[in-house]
Amino acid sequence: MIFLDAAATTPVRREVIEAMFPYLTGSFGNPSSHHDLGEQAAAALEQAKTQIAELVGCRPGEVIFTSGGTEADNLAIKGIALARRQLDKTRNRILISAIEHPAVMESAEFLARVHGFEVDVIPVHRSGLIDSAIFAEKLGPDVALASVMYANNEIGSIQPLAELAELTTAHRVPLHTDAVQASGWLSLNIAELGVDALSLSGHKFGAPKGVGALILRSRTLAEPLIHGGGQQSGLRSGTENVAFAVALACAIQLAEAERAEAFSRVSGLRDDFIAAVQSRLPQALLTGPSGEARLPSIASFCFPGTHGESVLLELERRSIICSSGSACAAGSAEPSPVLLALGISAELAQTAVRFSLPSSVTRLELDQTVEALVQAVTKLAKLGGEAR
Amino acid sequence: MIFLDAAATTPVRREVIEAMFPYLTGSFGNPSSHHDLGEQAAAALEQAKTQIAELVGCRPGEVIFTSGGTEADNLAIKGIALARRQLDKTRNRILISAIEHPAVMESAEFLARVHGFEVDVIPVHRSGLIDSAIFAEKLGPDVALASVMYANNEIGSIQPLAELAELTTAHRVPLHTDAVQASGWLSLNIAELGVDALSLSGHKFGAPKGVGALILRSRTLAEPLIHGGGQQSGLRSGTENVAFAVALACAIQLAEAERAEAFSRVSGLRDDFIAAVQSRLPQALLTGPSGEARLPSIASFCFPGTHGESVLLELERRSIICSSGSACAAGSAEPSPVLLALGISAELAQTAVRFSLPSSVTRLELDQTVEALVQAVTKLAKLGGEAR
Repeated sequence: MIFLDAAATTPVRREVIEAMFPYLTGSFGNPSSHHDLGEQAAAALEQAKTQIAELVGCRPGEVIFTSGGTEADNLAIKGIALARRQLDKTRNRILISAIEHPAVMESAEFLARVHGFEVDVIPVHRSGLIDSAIFAEKLGPDVALASVMYANNEIGSIQPLAELAELTTAHRVPLHTDAVQASGWLSLNIAELGVDALSLSGHKFGAPKGVGALILRSRTLAEPLIHGGGQQSGLRSGTENVAFAVALACAIQLAEAERAEAFSRVSGLRDDFIAAVQSRLPQALLTGPSGEARLPSIASFCFPGTHGESVLLELERRSIICSSGSACAAGSAEPSPVLLALGISAELAQTAVRFSLPSSVTRLELDQTVEALVQAVTKLAKLGGEAR
Repeated sequence: MIFLDAAATTPVRREVIEAMFPYLTGSFGNPSSHHDLGEQAAAALEQAKTQIAELVGCRPGEVIFTSGGTEADNLAIKGIALARRQLDKTRNRILISAIEHPAVMESAEFLARVHGFEVDVIPVHRSGLIDSAIFAEKLGPDVALASVMYANNEIGSIQPLAELAELTTAHRVPLHTDAVQASGWLSLNIAELGVDALSLSGHKFGAPKGVGALILRSRTLAEPLIHGGGQQSGLRSGTENVAFAVALACAIQLAEAERAEAFSRVSGLRDDFIAAVQSRLPQALLTGPSGEARLPSIASFCFPGTHGESVLLELERRSIICSSGSACAAGSAEPSPVLLALGISAELAQTAVRFSLPSSVTRLELDQTVEALVQAVTKLAKLGGEAR
């Protein structure tokens, strides 16, 4: 099997399983308990926060463990916007980009529907990069929060966060970024990025599904999403998933240690892969940005004259696993909202195939993928031509 | 070590680790992905829902996996109340008992503070049983939701849910119950209980920390707590924690299979334990209900003339692990709100010690605990007397 769907999920790394295992077995205490067993668990949790904080450049108390990236996004969008408006009633508007993950989009929609917020969706260029002129225009003293994805899950576009952060800081607007796809590839240093909140998801870089974190600057107030016993400084109640917190810290440490090498190696392989696909299938349309503004792991194409789902089936028959776009929307027959936001037609968007490369990808795997893809697309285009 | 803090957490059972392990390793697919690997994960998730549904007497689609009991409570309280009021604007009041878990209490407080709901707290008798006459009185056409804990985590009182459900049904008020402590001991059959929603937490019965479920009748509408990709019929977005869902299903099956035997065996041991404590320490005050209205696993006392935390320390020195009350509030120096709600004074409440028995508890362990407890309380009472 050649697994090129790493943006959907990744296997748990062996080192991560080994690190978390003691907290599923002998050290099973509840970190809120005041006896030895509880204090062992609390110490492990604190160590995990400290390890993540070091890599992200924040304080341990600014790491909030969640059940995943979606919960982290929900906490950031709803929590910060509600808290900001509680302080200043005139701040009733939020800004998001047109290519956010549904966790951000739907949280914003909830704020509009239930809490009466106004949501401004900032368009992106054909490359998938945000229109920063419009972003700047739309900022103002009535904005409670802005959220712009660090790197997109479907087309890999990397947004100029530091530039956007200068604008939001000037307007005293908190800036959140969904860094779920960026992690493992790009720097997560929150000070350099200039953001106030950053979402992570463990299963995108070798930790299990079911754990993530929101990095939240202590100066940035947030209404909790999950209320209760007051764990995690009251920002996220519920008995902490100690084992998976340890897993997240271990996985992010491994990913960070390998990041620079993985970035340059996989960028090179991806460039060669894109070049090979474009040379062998000249009709292929690469979506998203070129060069430096693209995540090393993402190569997404439209193949006019085919249907994306059919290409996937043909590839899977050849033991190559990839996807048409976001796994979260894989059940949907609708064309990808991300591709539509780039100005791609609905018809063309239905022909999309996304290759998302794990950091372990090899040249041989990508060479085999090119061959299989040429076979698949040629076969389907022929069938499509005959059917017409 | 004699572990008598099972209401705080339990170790993961070996069978549970074995059941979930494949989904942390080879079968790591994202259940939303449309390839084989994804479909394996989706099938495992569906099987876990079906297994839980069979034991709870609901449909698989009525099982919503969450990150734990606290999230399940938040989804139930906020989600149902908001959805009910969206349908019928006059329903602006919610009823909860005076001894709910903070996850319910704080969710209700949030609804009051941010959404303008009115919260009626229904008192309990000295026994910890709800005053059903007041509950009946307070029900009305303006109530959006009632929530009454199945069995209390500190004093073990079991509420007459079926009786309350008749009242709520007559007023078309959805009834939620926090069954986190009841699971493994009492029937979870939702039809017999008559409730519309029921919260479970895996780590209380041998599954890991970080997974729970809300059982939600499909006729009962709820606004999601976590919005996004639309997983779990849109009721709980976010990539599902497949491994822990499988773990939860495995643990609940084991617990249900052993439940009847555990109930009768541990009830007997607990009765003997309580009798021994009361005979050896006549000053001990048993809190909570007597006989059938008490969870087999809970025996909670106040020891006048001591401080609960000091008793715990003395017991821990003798390798006996228990707690002063809820682990969620273990960091707090305040007396337990549950004990105060019973009419116990703040001073006496500070002397509380809760023994919460795992289903594996033995007579020998409890006999040793009685001896250690007598030593501890006697020593502390003497010190206290000398200090005066």
